[in-house]
This record gives sequence, structure tokens and C-alpha cells, in this order.
Amino acid sequence: MLHIFNSLTGKKEPFEPINPPFVGMYVCGPTVYNHVHLGNARTFMSFDVVFRYLRYLDFKVRYVRNITDVGHLENDADEGEDKISKRARIEQLEPMEIVQQYTVGFHNIMAQFNALPPSIEPSATGHIVEQIQMVQDILNNGWAYESNGSVYFDVKKYIDAGHDYGKLSGRNVDELFSGTRALDGQSEKRNPMDFALWKKASSEHIMRWPSPWGDGFPGWHLECSVMSTKYLGDAFDIHGGGMDLKFPHHECEVAQCNAAHGTDAVNVWMHANMLTLNGKRMSKSTGNTLLPQEIFSGENPFLSKPYHPMVLRFFMLQAHYRSTLDISDAALLAAEKGYNRLHEALGMLSDLPTSASSTIDVDHWGERFAAAMNDDFNTPVLIAELFDAVKEIHRIKSGEAAISSDDLQRFDTLLADYVYSVLGLQPQSEKNSNDSLEKLDAALQVLIHLRNQARADKNWALSDDIRDQLMEKGIVLKDGKDGTTYTIQS
Amino acid sequence: MLHIFNSLTGKKEPFEPINPPFVGMYVCGPTVYNHVHLGNARTFMSFDVVFRYLRYLDFKVRYVRNITDVGHLENDADEGEDKISKRARIEQLEPMEIVQQYTVGFHNIMAQFNALPPSIEPSATGHIVEQIQMVQDILNNGWAYESNGSVYFDVKKYIDAGHDYGKLSGRNVDELFSGTRALDGQSEKRNPMDFALWKKASSEHIMRWPSPWGDGFPGWHLECSVMSTKYLGDAFDIHGGGMDLKFPHHECEVAQCNAAHGTDAVNVWMHANMLTLNGKRMSKSTGNTLLPQEIFSGENPFLSKPYHPMVLRFFMLQAHYRSTLDISDAALLAAEKGYNRLHEALGMLSDLPTSASSTIDVDHWGERFAAAMNDDFNTPVLIAELFDAVKEIHRIKSGEAAISSDDLQRFDTLLADYVYSVLGLQPQSEKNSNDSLEKLDAALQVLIHLRNQARADKNWALSDDIRDQLMEKGIVLKDGKDGTTYTIQS
Repeated sequence: MLHIFNSLTGKKEPFEPINPPFVGMYVCGPTVYNHVHLGNARTFMSFDVVFRYLRYLDFKVRYVRNITDVGHLENDADEGEDKISKRARIEQLEPMEIVQQYTVGFHNIMAQFNALPPSIEPSATGHIVEQIQMVQDILNNGWAYESNGSVYFDVKKYIDAGHDYGKLSGRNVDELFSGTRALDGQSEKRNPMDFALWKKASSEHIMRWPSPWGDGFPGWHLECSVMSTKYLGDAFDIHGGGMDLKFPHHECEVAQCNAAHGTDAVNVWMHANMLTLNGKRMSKSTGNTLLPQEIFSGENPFLSKPYHPMVLRFFMLQAHYRSTLDISDAALLAAEKGYNRLHEALGMLSDLPTSASSTIDVDHWGERFAAAMNDDFNTPVLIAELFDAVKEIHRIKSGEAAISSDDLQRFDTLLADYVYSVLGLQPQSEKNSNDSLEKLDAALQVLIHLRNQARADKNWALSDDIRDQLMEKGIVLKDGKDGTTYTIQS
Repeated sequence: MLHIFNSLTGKKEPFEPINPPFVGMYVCGPTVYNHVHLGNARTFMSFDVVFRYLRYLDFKVRYVRNITDVGHLENDADEGEDKISKRARIEQLEPMEIVQQYTVGFHNIMAQFNALPPSIEPSATGHIVEQIQMVQDILNNGWAYESNGSVYFDVKKYIDAGHDYGKLSGRNVDELFSGTRALDGQSEKRNPMDFALWKKASSEHIMRWPSPWGDGFPGWHLECSVMSTKYLGDAFDIHGGGMDLKFPHHECEVAQCNAAHGTDAVNVWMHANMLTLNGKRMSKSTGNTLLPQEIFSGENPFLSKPYHPMVLRFFMLQAHYRSTLDISDAALLAAEKGYNRLHEALGMLSDLPTSASSTIDVDHWGERFAAAMNDDFNTPVLIAELFDAVKEIHRIKSGEAAISSDDLQRFDTLLADYVYSVLGLQPQSEKNSNDSLEKLDAALQVLIHLRNQARADKNWALSDDIRDQLMEKGIVLKDGKDGTTYTIQS
């Protein structure tokens, strides 16, 4: 049975959907004001595997991942410019042009990572009516107040009424209150801990909508409470996001849902951990930062070569989603080797010799794979099990182990299910380009072999002829001390 | 100077942007309740070329193409089920899951066609606030009335006040009035010609939003007026769409904008023509229908083989966007030949012999290409000119014509600009997979040649060796009466 680590309780718990076989899952998506960050890509890849495994278990999953296209301010204290608006100002574009540009870029990157699109991908600007409605509900229930055209959540009142603000993030309320700087007389907030549900738009603010409190825009935390409950109901199964969103974003979501609907809304909170680069926190200001496309293209100062998106995916899944993961050239090189070794073994499956009976127990392998994933989606353990299976494949090939043709088919299906459907790695046959490169390599090895024979026979005319004919087609043979290699001209 | 055929005036007119170098262009996008139709794909491809050519002319284009995700009812008389809701009911999904599924599919198809994403891709559900506001404006200005929780545009009042309803579509108003069936006493409309700005949602209707007139959803025509003017201003340059949208959709847009803002909003109306299949109208009910992905995969009863998206794009651009176009196997085969011939010639450019002086006038070629596109985006004439240029390339190669190295570079740039940037065909070098297939073919031809020599020398051992070594790698040689061919096993 599947167990999931619930950030709210700090424990692994058996997963019991509210309304089986349906599962509702909400994951906080990107704020589309810039290229998607590698750390965010890891988070979305982690939840892609959660989505895939739940589907593999035959749950009917509705997976909602939002696009934040308004309301995310530069700092968490409800101050500073809107991230999208600022970028629009810098690039001299309409904010929605920024949104489109980086949404398209985000989708392209996730497609290269072979991440499935979510079932619904709602945007904050697409749910202004619903957000105004939820602000109204919270106001009506007495947990918020209007101040100068903005509406704030009254955290102190919420706590004084006995609500456990801090229960998700584990923050101590007293510390929170003493830790925030005192408000000057100008503040619209009653208390520094209060957070915006609706912000008044200044006259130069482009992104604005009419509301009962005047023209403004929704607070960042609000959109996720609104869109998750709109599409998944007032109580749903899983809410995920990056670890950095636990506070204040997710803590505020819990408070908002309680204030509006009287429930936490979420049964299981899941948080994916952070990525470091060469042992240090990624940060633009220090230059210790790397984008997915810089890894695919090889254009970066950190890595010795480009890495294929599937290698990066495989690399990330070699760590558990709740562990931090350090990216480095050595680690990626090792992952690439492993990825190739795994696929090489899978490629052998169809040609394995079969016997009348099997020395291997396919059901047992299925149980081992399931046990790994059922333990809070433990992909590193699953991958270790898969490499044990690779050893078994080699043993069958060399005759040290035996498999019946029936079992071989089941083994093949089982491995394909876990490698392709659950881990979301791409089967070799879909990589057409690589495939024809492999065939080209094979054909060229035959030609190099023939030419070597001609040279051994001192048939220089033939040897030169082979070289010249290939050269004409843009394939250059080069004789070195380690034998003959080739380069392909484009 | 660029001239565009304006559907409103029925004339080709010089294109003068309202606020150069900026150009605002709005195109009606898909209703995402099903796979994108081939005819729609043609429309979007036509406007992709318009977008590309305007950019090539150094205009700063803001290209808005919407996603219709609510309000498009099954018939144009404001009756019947919402297309998205109906599909959701049939597939037992949330309407927004339908929207997501077919939006992702649409984007994938357009990416395969190498169509650029628009600058902004707004959705109808994402602009409920703005739509309610425009309904309110039209009501306030006296051109609409509320009836039983719905709001209708008062076409008769609009006409009686002297507005030319029908000026875009050329419909005769008297005929329109007499042609529509009389209303029974139950109708909410004052007149059958009136159209919905806002529809009351029945109790079982899932897609609904609160409004001053009760819970409901926006009328289909409204969204385009709202989103075009929101992102492009109350007067903008170009509005495009399929010919079938002229009436009632675009005619209603004109009326709405006049009613709300007192202007037509649009300077130039452009309409793309329809696609037929084997000479007949495409229609699901008769089975005479074909989807883009069925053409790419070859899985359809109409065509002899799969066709690459670029061949289909090239085929479509061989017709003018205002002409009907018939798709058939013979026409696609011919397009494929032409596409290959064009690319073959472009591939020769870098290896052409150069001379001290030129017999060709590159500037003159540039003028010919521009003249074609400036004549209402006449892509078939441009393609004919490009094939004349292909002949010139062959003449240079054979020594019948001469080009200086300077001119060759300019010629190369000019051709690449029109073929890749303007027509949006994909350069060969980006087709890695095809490229390695070509190299593979070259290497195999060398091997087949060597094997033929071995057979002529009665060296059967070598001949068999070559065949067997290739077979081992999944490359099968086959000797037939027309020589040796090969097949590649995956």
C-alpha cells in the first residue's frame, strides 16, 4: 500500500483518497516572469512522477498545476513591484506578452523533460471573479478587514480564535510576531503578520480589475486556495510544491481555506526539496546558477559537455524528492553512464534466450519495484532495484540464469511500465535521431573494417576510394594511433 | 509597399498602421473542444505568415490569438449546449480538463507546423470581469436589454439608429430579418436577429459566474471584442479569422465595439478561405474529413503515405490564403517533390562556384520576392519566384550563369529570409534526424557500390560478408531487378 510523507504531520501515512478511485492533486506552478529555474524543474519532475505512479496504480487523477501571472510581488511582505509587471516594464512589453513568452518556454522545457501536462492548468488572471468571491467570503466570516482599498487577512484574530497558524511550516507564532519589524504609522496593516488578499492598484499599475474595494489585483496566496478548491473541491487529497513555499505561501493557504470554508482543504501536503550546484545554493547574484536549456546546450561554465534532458531527468530521480540534490559535472557524467547502461539492458530484452522454465520470479520483481514506490515514491530505491534487474538480464544473456518466453514477456512489460510509464524516461525507439545515428555508426564501422582489410592487402586504390567517396558525402575518416575514427559534417 | 485585401471594403488597400512601427493583430483562435480541424490549421498558418512577414518588414507586431473555452454554443442562434460542456459531459471530465487536453494538442500541432506562438493567447474564461464590464457598457449605452437573466444585443434598434449591420458580411438586413424564423411567445429575444451578450446559466450548467444579471456565462461573440480591445486598444490594425466567421461572429463584433466604444475597432479585416478534401467540403457526418495528425502519421483512408508537417505547410502556402484549396494525394505528392527540390537547391548554395563578377542581380530578386508578398501576402507567387531562383542556382552550378562571392552571400541570406523567416519552412540543418538519415543513405550507397564490385569480381565471400555485417546491425540489403535497396529495422 502506498504511503506518503505528509508535511503537515511530519509522518509517512497510508494514502487513502477521499473519494476513490478519484484523486485530486494540486501543485503550485511557476510565476512566469522568467525562464524556469532548474530547482523548479526538479519540483515539477518530482510531482510528474507522483502523477504517473498514481495513474499506474489505476487512480483517476485530476492534477491541477497553476500558472501565476499576477499578484506575485517581489517580496513576501506584500510590498514591491509585481514580478510580471516589472519584467514587462523592463522589456517594454504588455504584461501578458511576458506571461505568454515564459509560459511557452516553460511548456517547452517540461516537454523536453517528458513531463506530462497537468489535467488543468489554470491561471491567476483567469480566476479574478472567483478570487473576489473568496475575499468576500473571508470578509463576511470576519477573518479579514479592508484598509485603504486593500483587504488583509487578520492573522492575530485567527490565532486568538484558537487556529494553529504555523502548523504546516512549524513556525512558532510568538517568534513570528517578534521577528517581524514593527509597523510605522503609515501601514495599512493592523499587524505585520497580516497578509494581502486583495491589493489596491496604484494609478500606474497596468494589471488591475474592478472589485467591491476599488480597482486592484489579488494577493499571491489567494489564487492557489481559489483554484485548488474550484477544481478539486473544498477537501482534496494532495497539495504539493517546493519546500520554499511552505511559509508563508502554504501556511496562508491553510488559513484562507479555514477562514472561507471552515476546513484545511488539503489532506496530504507534499514538499519537494532544493537543488544545489557544486555544493552551493543556486543564486543569480553570486552567478552560481544554471538553467535547464543551458544544460541541454552545454553553454554554461560548470559542465564539461551538454547533457540530454533524459539524462538530467534520470539524474534527478536518482535522489528522493525530499532530499536535497547537488548537481555537478561528475554526478551528471555518472548518471549518463547509468542511464545508458539501463537502456542497453532494456534493448537486450527482445533478443534474450528463453528456456522451458525460469530461474527468476517476475512477480517478486514486481513486488520489489512497487515496494520502492509505495514507500513515499522512493525513486532512488526503485532505480537501484532496476539495476539489480539489469544484472539479471546480463545473467540470462550469459546463460547463468534462465527465463521462459512467457516470463520474458511479463518481465519486459514490468520493466517498461516502471522505466517509461512511472519514471517517465523515454524509450530508445522514440529517439529517432539517435537511432539513425546508431545505424550510421554501424554502417561506417563496416566500411572502416573493409578499408582496413584493403590496407592490409595493400589495395591502396580501394582504401582511398572508400575514404574519398565518404568525404564527398561529408563523412571524414581519420586514421589515428587508436584506429580509424570519423566526423560527420553538417 | 504592402497592400492588404480588406474584407470590409472588398479592396486591396495600402497598409498604414495606426501607430507605426507598432501593429496590432487579432485572430480568432480555436474552440478547444476537439482536435484542431485541418481547415482551422490552414487559417492559423495563413496568419502565421502574415505575422512573420510583418515582422520581416520590421513592424513591432503584437499578435493576439484567443482560446475559446466557454460560450461557444452548438448553433449560432444562442441555443444548444456549450461545446466544451457537452464534450466534458460525454468524456466525463471537468470542462477545464477538456480545455487543457485540446489546448495542449492544438499547441503541439501548431509547433509541428512551425507556426510561431502568438504574442498573447488570452482565454474567454480568463476575461469574465472584462466581459461583464463590456456588457454593462453596451447596456448603459442603450444597445442591449436584459431578459430573464440573459442580456441580448438589440440589433433592430442598432439598425434603426442608422448603423450598417451587415456591412462586413455583405448580408442584406431585410433578408436577414425575413430569413430567420419567427419567435414563439416563449423567446427571451425581442427579435430573432438579436444575439446574446450574456446567457443565464441553467441550474445544471457547470461553467457559470456571478454577474449583475445573475449566474451565467458570456456570449461567444463578446469575448473577441473584449480581448482584442483590451490588448490592442479601441482601434487596432488587423482582425483575422476564417471565412466562416464573417457572419455572424465578426459582424457581431463590429456591432458590439460600436455599441460599447463608438468605433469599429478594426481597420483591416482579413479572412482566410476554406479547405476541401478531394473536391468536397470536409464534414464529419459524411466521413470526408482529415486531421493534421492523421496526415503526419499516414493513418487515414485518403492518402497513399504519411506527409511531413513541412510538406503540408508548403502545400498550403502554394495557394493564396483567400483562395479555396483542395487537398488530395496527388497534390501532396507534387508538393513534396517541390519542397525537396527547393531544399536541394538551397543546400547547393554554399558549394556554388563564384566568379569575379555576377550575371545575376540580387537586388532584383529581392524586389521580386517583396512584390509578391506586398501583394496581399501572395505566397504562391513568391513560391513561383523562388523556383525561378532555383533554376538560377542550377545555372550557376553548371556555369551558365555567374555570381560573385559577395553576391552569393547576399543571395543566400535573401533566400533564407524568405524561405525560413517569412514562409516559416524549416531549414534542413534543423532536421537532425533527416540529416543523419541522409548520411546513413550515403554510407550505405558506398557499401552497396563496393558489394556490387565484389560481385562483379565474383568475390562472393566479400559480398556476403558486407550483407551479413549490415544484417547484424539491423540493416537489410535486398537485391532486386532495379538494383540493391535496403530497409532499416528499428
